[in-house]
Amino acid sequence: MHQDLQLFSELCDYLLAEEKNNPVAQPIATSEVYQKLNLSLDDDGIINQELISTLKSIIKHTPKTASKSFFNQLFGGRIGKATLGDLLAVMLNNSMYTYKVAGPQVGIEKEIIDNICKLSGYKKYSGGTLAAGGSMTNFMALLMARDYKFPEIRTEGISQKITLYTSEASHYSISKNAVLSGIGRNYVRQIKTNQKGEMSATHLDEVIQQDIADGRIPFFVNATAGTTVLGAFDDITALSKVCKNYNLWLHVDGAYCGSVIFSNKHKHLVNGLELTDSFSVNAHKMLGTPLGCSIIITQHISQLHHSFSNEADYLYQTDGDDFNLGKTSLQCGRRNDALKLWTLWKSVGTKGLEKIVDHQFELAKIARDYINFNPDYTLYSFEDSISVCFNYKDIPANLLCTGLYEDSELMVGFGKFNKKEFIRMVTINTVLEKEDIHNFFKTLETYASKSLLKNVVN
Amino acid sequence: MHQDLQLFSELCDYLLAEEKNNPVAQPIATSEVYQKLNLSLDDDGIINQELISTLKSIIKHTPKTASKSFFNQLFGGRIGKATLGDLLAVMLNNSMYTYKVAGPQVGIEKEIIDNICKLSGYKKYSGGTLAAGGSMTNFMALLMARDYKFPEIRTEGISQKITLYTSEASHYSISKNAVLSGIGRNYVRQIKTNQKGEMSATHLDEVIQQDIADGRIPFFVNATAGTTVLGAFDDITALSKVCKNYNLWLHVDGAYCGSVIFSNKHKHLVNGLELTDSFSVNAHKMLGTPLGCSIIITQHISQLHHSFSNEADYLYQTDGDDFNLGKTSLQCGRRNDALKLWTLWKSVGTKGLEKIVDHQFELAKIARDYINFNPDYTLYSFEDSISVCFNYKDIPANLLCTGLYEDSELMVGFGKFNKKEFIRMVTINTVLEKEDIHNFFKTLETYASKSLLKNVVN
Repeated sequence: MHQDLQLFSELCDYLLAEEKNNPVAQPIATSEVYQKLNLSLDDDGIINQELISTLKSIIKHTPKTASKSFFNQLFGGRIGKATLGDLLAVMLNNSMYTYKVAGPQVGIEKEIIDNICKLSGYKKYSGGTLAAGGSMTNFMALLMARDYKFPEIRTEGISQKITLYTSEASHYSISKNAVLSGIGRNYVRQIKTNQKGEMSATHLDEVIQQDIADGRIPFFVNATAGTTVLGAFDDITALSKVCKNYNLWLHVDGAYCGSVIFSNKHKHLVNGLELTDSFSVNAHKMLGTPLGCSIIITQHISQLHHSFSNEADYLYQTDGDDFNLGKTSLQCGRRNDALKLWTLWKSVGTKGLEKIVDHQFELAKIARDYINFNPDYTLYSFEDSISVCFNYKDIPANLLCTGLYEDSELMVGFGKFNKKEFIRMVTINTVLEKEDIHNFFKTLETYASKSLLKNVVN
Repeated sequence: MHQDLQLFSELCDYLLAEEKNNPVAQPIATSEVYQKLNLSLDDDGIINQELISTLKSIIKHTPKTASKSFFNQLFGGRIGKATLGDLLAVMLNNSMYTYKVAGPQVGIEKEIIDNICKLSGYKKYSGGTLAAGGSMTNFMALLMARDYKFPEIRTEGISQKITLYTSEASHYSISKNAVLSGIGRNYVRQIKTNQKGEMSATHLDEVIQQDIADGRIPFFVNATAGTTVLGAFDDITALSKVCKNYNLWLHVDGAYCGSVIFSNKHKHLVNGLELTDSFSVNAHKMLGTPLGCSIIITQHISQLHHSFSNEADYLYQTDGDDFNLGKTSLQCGRRNDALKLWTLWKSVGTKGLEKIVDHQFELAKIARDYINFNPDYTLYSFEDSISVCFNYKDIPANLLCTGLYEDSELMVGFGKFNKKEFIRMVTINTVLEKEDIHNFFKTLETYASKSLLKNVVN
């Protein structure tokens, strides 16, 4: 193992240097990837030096999500203490289902859950777990809501038309999860948003009434804290009133921006969170841990047990249910995704997490200010968001983004809202500074002018 | 980052030394874990030296799944080249949904899938993906089968009584997944096994006929390659005949022992695999990668798309569907769980993986031989299995296992079959040798005699 740890160290040095010197890896066309890189798996293995040079060539061409030029996804950057925790998790290799086999790592996961419950205003009967990604935590919320209102579904299956509600700006996993859970895509209602991308409580109420009038049974509303494109926050308090009226489970999908609970300045964006039934947040997004660290909490801890528990006497052999996390998990075996958040949180404190969150909003403001002071840009996003959406000189967003990527200049994507397509720059890499944001725009502008020139010449 | 990599190196040295010198960490009672270890998350962080000493105390008490005394789960041990790959995946931190953001890592995952398809005898229209654990790959198989026979469920939800079949010795996730997918636990049929724990094709046929006679619609059969307790292999060819008769999807849950496909000597245990519709295998079990590396393949690649695809134009912006793995994934964001298997496979070759698999069967034979030659032991498991099940001197298995754990002697669990409870020793740590297996028994015997003596004295 010591030798492999040395190889790891050598490859890390190489990766960190590449990340700095070639922050946007030169992409290889999919049609050429198997010719240009030695990816084949064969009968015989390759020895250390050949393996290392093969790995270096792969690292060279792998997109650098931690570089200063990466603004493409709802994650990015690297925070040393979080990475340390995940590296340790790989070495320790505990599965989180039982205390017997995970020991104090169970205490670490529980400590995270307890503190997130407190910060969310969740009370006595709350609890939670981790799952593999925000789609899966949303899935768990949907299942808890379904089984809470219709406990017989667990034994007898679905036999009625039951309906759920989410905004048209919400994540696609809500509809997809309705398919997985046997409810059907036709029973997902896409509720209108206002011009900022926030779900309309009035339209929600109308659609619910119509469903009831038509003989269907509403059971679940999904609110979003940070929509995928604009980064908008639904008005939880307003939606909660509707949910109380009709006795519906209210879930908040905070995968992207639920981490505002750590910030005194920004937690008002999830005002009313304490009124909800479940809440999910991805620490690998705003908190900057490595992928994945997706957390879900609920104020109905018993429902978490009812929907996900299992009897397996070959597995649960010591200790109580509270410490055998498999009893409340979607999965059976589960890697330790808690430790990376714990090492970060432990080392910077809750105040440090607050700084991480606040800084991302500051970076977004720097970007918006730049755009607002420059007439060549049009801004499409709003305050209170770390998604900065814009166009530059009427250049089609998809052309500009794809060009920047293919020519190794910047990694940034595009999105759509109200039929407008625009560039979506995500200021989620918390180690960036003002000059990095300005460099982003300078790079884009230089590229655009070169690129336009090239088009003229061609 | 360099400083944190140095901390990681220091903590690895500590972990490897502990693993060797204290192979079974002293367990802390759950009631004391928060007092004995500094797990609390507070407003302020702690500085490097304090963090390191805190982490060392946590590592000290965390169960050592890679030690030579760990026989407790269906995984264990550590193989350097696989660990290297997973450590790199943490540093690279790509999400596998698009080629734009994962680049050659997509090629790596596809290369693994293609080779596993070939080894399984899967033909032209086959493909697959990775998911978070064997429960989730079984879930994907169930959903594909459901949507293949009843495509309208995706839009209209479940409205009929549809039934699925699995043996009473199979993993609990089959029933749990029937609940998640809206089918209901009452429509899962537990098929009888023979005395070796293999599903009865005759009983399967009878139960299917009864369901059809009662107006229910059968659609899915789960066969197991390596049952959880005995490690038994269902007769795929026999089950396939029944499935063809009734037009049912046949899935093989090879989470535990599906890796026999790598062994010329043992692949006969999954004879008929090429006749099945889907097959799942966990590389973090027999192939010894870190958690998790769960693979599912199917001969209906279009069904993988139909059941799991999604339209998200903010996400899929370059390249074709074939290289945008999010289109066939259960999750949206997904960590890179492929690289660890690829680094292992690349470095030892398919022949090396064969050796890994074969050695585990050899270790199991060594254990069974030891038991068979010693009249103090009773053997409950069979040949062709890496689960070695036994009792020693009529000592209740649960007492002996719990004692061995609490007194830091050995990590081993117990299981049940045909109302008999016994110790289940799993010989899955491929770096072990004959003497390690003999040491296991010597330790157990010494402990039992001390322990009996103690009981007499008390």
